[in-house]
Amino acid sequence: MELLYKSVISEELKELEKSLLSSISSDISLATEISNYLLLSGGKRLRPALCILVSKALEYDGEDLIKLASSIELLHTATLIHDDVVDESLFRRGKESIHSKWDNAHGVLVGDFVYSKAFQLMASFKNPEIIRTLADSTNRISEGEVLQLSLKSQDLLEKDYFNIVDRKTAELFKAAVLTSGILASCESNTLLCLREFATSLGIAYQVQDDILDYFGDEELTGKKNGKDFQEGKFTLPVIMAMKLANSKDKSAMISLLQEGDLKKFPQMLDYLVEKNINSQIKETFTFYSTNCLESLEILPESPYKDALKDIVINLDSRLT
Amino acid sequence: MELLYKSVISEELKELEKSLLSSISSDISLATEISNYLLLSGGKRLRPALCILVSKALEYDGEDLIKLASSIELLHTATLIHDDVVDESLFRRGKESIHSKWDNAHGVLVGDFVYSKAFQLMASFKNPEIIRTLADSTNRISEGEVLQLSLKSQDLLEKDYFNIVDRKTAELFKAAVLTSGILASCESNTLLCLREFATSLGIAYQVQDDILDYFGDEELTGKKNGKDFQEGKFTLPVIMAMKLANSKDKSAMISLLQEGDLKKFPQMLDYLVEKNINSQIKETFTFYSTNCLESLEILPESPYKDALKDIVINLDSRLT
Repeated sequence: MELLYKSVISEELKELEKSLLSSISSDISLATEISNYLLLSGGKRLRPALCILVSKALEYDGEDLIKLASSIELLHTATLIHDDVVDESLFRRGKESIHSKWDNAHGVLVGDFVYSKAFQLMASFKNPEIIRTLADSTNRISEGEVLQLSLKSQDLLEKDYFNIVDRKTAELFKAAVLTSGILASCESNTLLCLREFATSLGIAYQVQDDILDYFGDEELTGKKNGKDFQEGKFTLPVIMAMKLANSKDKSAMISLLQEGDLKKFPQMLDYLVEKNINSQIKETFTFYSTNCLESLEILPESPYKDALKDIVINLDSRLT
Repeated sequence: MELLYKSVISEELKELEKSLLSSISSDISLATEISNYLLLSGGKRLRPALCILVSKALEYDGEDLIKLASSIELLHTATLIHDDVVDESLFRRGKESIHSKWDNAHGVLVGDFVYSKAFQLMASFKNPEIIRTLADSTNRISEGEVLQLSLKSQDLLEKDYFNIVDRKTAELFKAAVLTSGILASCESNTLLCLREFATSLGIAYQVQDDILDYFGDEELTGKKNGKDFQEGKFTLPVIMAMKLANSKDKSAMISLLQEGDLKKFPQMLDYLVEKNINSQIKETFTFYSTNCLESLEILPESPYKDALKDIVINLDSRLT
C-alpha cells in the first residue's frame, strides 16, 4: 500500500527528482557523487511532499514550487548526513552511511556542500520572507541538535523531549508548509493553522516512531522492534515510565538501557506495560494527530487536502 | 607593530565585536558558549576588516556594513570549526580546538549552528545580490574542501593547488570585498577590480604562508618553521620542487613528508634550496602581491585604501 500523496502529486514528485539531481550537480565530481549516493537512496520525500500539497491545496500555480520543495529536501539531506557523523551511525536507508562508506571528513564536508546547495536555492527566491523563514528554521534545527547534546539523557524531562522534537523534527515540517503558504500568498490565519498542523505533525510523527519501536506490529511495519532500546535512547515511552517509577525501578531501567542487550528487551517492555505506558502514550499521539487533522480544516476541499489527511491517518504504518 | 587597519577602523572593529557577540547569542546556552569560545579567541578579523575598508573607501555610510562584516566573520568561523574536525587538529589560535576540548559531535553541530547564524544575518539583507553572492561563495568554499579530499596529495599539481586555494582561501576574501562593493553601490568596473584584488590577495596570502613555513625568519614571525612539513602537507614549495625533481629525489621527498620527523626538516630544506625554490616561489608571491596593489588603484585615495595596501605590503610579517 502506498500513501495517497504518491499518486496525487506523482508528476510533481517526478519533477522534484529531476530538480534535486540538477541542484546537486557540481564541477567537483566527488561532491556530486557522494551527495547523490544518499539523495537517490529512496527517501520518502515527505517534507517536499508537504510543501507541494499545501501550495497545490491553496491553488498556487507558479513556477517556484519545485525549487522550494527541493531546497527543503536538501536541508533535510544535509541534516541526515551530519546526524550520521554525530551518531556514528553505520547505516542509513538500508545502505552504509556516508560517514561509514567514506569517513568522518567526507561526512562533515559533503554535509556542508549539500547545505550550501540548499542555501543557493533559497537565495534565489524573490520573496525575502521565504528566505528568512528558511534561514530561521535552519538555525532552530541546529539549536535543537546542540540542545540534545547538552542534556544528559537520563535526566531528560518531557518538556525537554518536546522542545528537542519541536526543533529537530517539527521545525522542517513547519518550514515546508509555511514557505509553501507564503509562496501561495495565503492569509495570515491560514499560516497560523499551517504552523499548528506542522508542529503537531512533527510531534505525532516522532511520538509514533517512539511507540512503534516498543509496541509496533513487526509484520505491519516491516522493522524489528527494540532499536531505540539497543541504542540506549531515552525516548518518550522511557521518559514517561521513569517519571512514574520508584528509584529502584528507575535505576533498573537506566541499567537496561545502558546495557542495550536485545535479549533483555522483554524486561524493559514489562516495566512499560506495568506502568500502562502503552495506552498513556497513545493518548498523547491521538491528541497531536487529532490536532493535525483539525488544523487542516482551514484548507478548501481538494485531493491535495485529502492526501495531507491521509499522511496523518497513516502515521502508524511507518509508510511515512 | 600593528597593521594600519587596526587604527584606521578601530571604531568599526569595536562595533564588529559587539555585533558578533549579539549575533551568536541563543536560547541554547551551550551553543553560545562553544561558539564564543572560538569567536572570542583573538582572531585578526582580516576578512571583516577587508569588507569594512572597501565600503569605507567607497564612501558607503549606511547601516548595514557591520552586519555584513559580521556575517563574513561567522562564515569564516564556521569553516574553521569544521576544518578542525576534519583535520583532527588539537589546537586553534593557541587554545584547544572545539573538537578536542569537547568532541567530534560538538564540533560538527556547533559549526552548523554558526553557519546558520551567518545565514540568518545574510537573509536579512534587502539587496538579493548580496544574499546570492554570499550563498554562492559558501558553495564554492565547500566545493574547495571536498576537492581537497578528492586529490591524493602526492599527485597534486600546481593547477590543483591554485584551484583549491582559490576556493578555500581567496573565495571568502572575494565575498567580503564584492558584497562590500555591492553595498556601496559601486560601478561594475570597480567590482571587477575588487574581485581581482581579493583573488590575488587570497593566493598571495596562502603562498606566503607556505613560504614562511620553510623559509620564514622565526624571530620575525614568532612561529616555529616546519609545521606543514611535520603534518606531511604538500604545500606549494613541495609541489614546485617535486615538479623539478627526478624520480629518486621525488620519492625521497615523499618519504620525508610521510615521516614528518622535524629532525629531518633540514634535509627537506636542502632539496628545496638545491632546486632554487626559495627564489622561484618568491617570484610567484611577488606576482600576486603586485597584482593586488595594482587592482587597488581603482579606489580613490583615502586612509582606508592606505590600510588595504598596508595589509598587502605586510603579508610576510604573519601579522595577517
